[in-house]
Amino acid sequence: MAFQKPTGTQDLLPGTVEKWQFIEEKARDLCRRFNYREIRTPIFEQTSLFERGVGETTDIVEKEMYTFLDKGERSMTLRPEGTAGVVRSYVENKLYGEPDVSKLYYIGPMFRYERPQAGRQRQFHQFGIEAFGATDPAIDAEVVALGYQFCRELGLQGVKVEINSVGNPASRAAYREKLLGFLLPMKDSLCKDCQARIERNPLRVLDCKTDQDKFDGAPSILDSLDEECTAHFAKVQELLSAMEVEYEINPRLVRGLDYYTHTAFEYKAQGIGAIDTIGGGGRYNGLVAEVGGPDQPGIGFGMGLERIALILEKQEIELGAVKPLDVYLIALGEAADKEITTQLFKLRQAGLSAERDYLGRKMKAQMKSADRMQARYTAILGDDELERGEIALKSMENGEQRTVKLSDLIQELK
Amino acid sequence: MAFQKPTGTQDLLPGTVEKWQFIEEKARDLCRRFNYREIRTPIFEQTSLFERGVGETTDIVEKEMYTFLDKGERSMTLRPEGTAGVVRSYVENKLYGEPDVSKLYYIGPMFRYERPQAGRQRQFHQFGIEAFGATDPAIDAEVVALGYQFCRELGLQGVKVEINSVGNPASRAAYREKLLGFLLPMKDSLCKDCQARIERNPLRVLDCKTDQDKFDGAPSILDSLDEECTAHFAKVQELLSAMEVEYEINPRLVRGLDYYTHTAFEYKAQGIGAIDTIGGGGRYNGLVAEVGGPDQPGIGFGMGLERIALILEKQEIELGAVKPLDVYLIALGEAADKEITTQLFKLRQAGLSAERDYLGRKMKAQMKSADRMQARYTAILGDDELERGEIALKSMENGEQRTVKLSDLIQELK
Repeated sequence: MAFQKPTGTQDLLPGTVEKWQFIEEKARDLCRRFNYREIRTPIFEQTSLFERGVGETTDIVEKEMYTFLDKGERSMTLRPEGTAGVVRSYVENKLYGEPDVSKLYYIGPMFRYERPQAGRQRQFHQFGIEAFGATDPAIDAEVVALGYQFCRELGLQGVKVEINSVGNPASRAAYREKLLGFLLPMKDSLCKDCQARIERNPLRVLDCKTDQDKFDGAPSILDSLDEECTAHFAKVQELLSAMEVEYEINPRLVRGLDYYTHTAFEYKAQGIGAIDTIGGGGRYNGLVAEVGGPDQPGIGFGMGLERIALILEKQEIELGAVKPLDVYLIALGEAADKEITTQLFKLRQAGLSAERDYLGRKMKAQMKSADRMQARYTAILGDDELERGEIALKSMENGEQRTVKLSDLIQELK
Repeated sequence: MAFQKPTGTQDLLPGTVEKWQFIEEKARDLCRRFNYREIRTPIFEQTSLFERGVGETTDIVEKEMYTFLDKGERSMTLRPEGTAGVVRSYVENKLYGEPDVSKLYYIGPMFRYERPQAGRQRQFHQFGIEAFGATDPAIDAEVVALGYQFCRELGLQGVKVEINSVGNPASRAAYREKLLGFLLPMKDSLCKDCQARIERNPLRVLDCKTDQDKFDGAPSILDSLDEECTAHFAKVQELLSAMEVEYEINPRLVRGLDYYTHTAFEYKAQGIGAIDTIGGGGRYNGLVAEVGGPDQPGIGFGMGLERIALILEKQEIELGAVKPLDVYLIALGEAADKEITTQLFKLRQAGLSAERDYLGRKMKAQMKSADRMQARYTAILGDDELERGEIALKSMENGEQRTVKLSDLIQELK
């Protein structure tokens, strides 16, 4: 009986995993420079947190969650996204009591039961950031810019940012009425989901993939913004330009839930078909209070790493090459074999990457193995060399060979 | 309504998460030097994989697994340990077809429904390695030494390795009979679990925490080893000494399941009470075949990172300090504020960590903020400086202040 990985999950093997390591190191380094610090929250949370924090009317909560009862009969859910857990942690750990803005990032697995396809897995991975405690447009612009810079430094081509403002609750209420005036007359022509959703949450109807072409004449939310919201949005744009972010305004980019306010944005990679959205985010000034915290503003984004990895591949961008081995040690004879163990250990202790054979192979096969591992050097120890306290060192680059003292080996290789 | 993290899980917040980052970076660097490469397998697997690969008679499978039905009615389980998934992946991806020994490592979350206590969480984290395809004692010794070196380089005090050999299936069968001869007469005095287990799996009885003191006169498995097993074990010890590993032989250290063979080992930290075992492992020459693969040998270990973090704390070993900020930018006035956005972005793009205020605070409060972030410098931009294309740069170390050109700022800070 052979086992298979669950549908919609992946094994990341040597040769591929290095690309992921590179992407994650880039995210971490970028966060260091922008002064965001890591937060790690549990893989599962109480189900009610996501119902509240992601929204009960969303596809995620309605259809896609991995929900189960634990052995204590409590309903738990594998996190379907990163924000809800971070907000819960921000509130539970009272981070709002700190004097500075909380600038946090996360990287890790998320889970949604969806139909798997290219760039979409049931276990997928996100890099996201959240900033709590500030309403200054400078933080909106910084959050948008960090994600954009991430794509740029990975070398992704044709990435653009679409931005919009969904205003404050008053602007949104005004827009809701205008939008209903536009949507209700066409209700019968819309898809089932939209018909069900239209009165409860008309803004989400605009997100519908099926009916997109029917909304060309829809009113723009930007016309419903009050003075303060318009000024905030203008400032965000000015600061994005100051940071060389190429953005476009998309007034139909709305986030359907009540706790979203002001800036909404998405990162898109052009010309790669179905997976064109890499990630997105927005300001959620109502979310912290929604999950039981004080009235603190927040803004963040989440990016799908599977999608980024897929686009990198399509654009033939090679990242995270396997690091070559420093040295491959070959022992000829029993006594040399034991000495190799000591030498190998000393090299590794000194910070060098070093390898040997474990399969009792002949010297020629060991040399091939060293080649496969892209070893910079091989070091060959026979009984004669051992007696003289020496070892033969061969450069795999130019084939040059010389004899060095065993006690000098580390220094010769460094 | 405020939410709490699930019982037995943790939030790792800034200030603590840096210690975890340090531990993980150490593990990754050690694996690079020992030529182990990362593998990432899914967070959940088919339940039957763990029943088979961990063992149906183990506490883990009998009592502690997070098992649930997915929306397709398949029984899935959050991985309770790392080896089963790696073995499944090794088989499914046919890594056994590669010419070299597969040397793999993993770091990540695992899940067991246990009573939480210090160093034991329901979501916990393991660093582990697995090496497939070689029976050479050199790989046994290397695996044991890598884990030991990990503890040593973290600075843990008083760590020792206990090792044993559980021989091959023939030796084990012989030992099983001898052990039954010792255990059956005392059966009635043993705990319930042991009584239930005694005939099915007498070796596991020796692991029982309750009855430990009754086993002082138990026969040693080392007396049942045949010549080949004895030679293998002797060679492992010789090579461990060659790598300066301090080990002790503990003949009562057995792993109860049939697929374990030869070397078994545990890492212990002395003098810290209940959490004294940090990790352990062994050779499992029968496991790859057990989960449906070819007859390939394997050996590995798993270490609990919560336990290591706790011991580091108890031993007052400080790791992974917060990295100080390179510069904190302060704008005085409207025009300066916009210029700061551009400068901040350029500094970050150039690799420096840089921060600003987002709360409209006065200069004094901003200086305090810079202090809290351990900024090396503050850079203050007023309207006058802006007009001259300059900025005031102040060292937070010695208080010295000088004026530099805006265009030279990156170079001055590097």
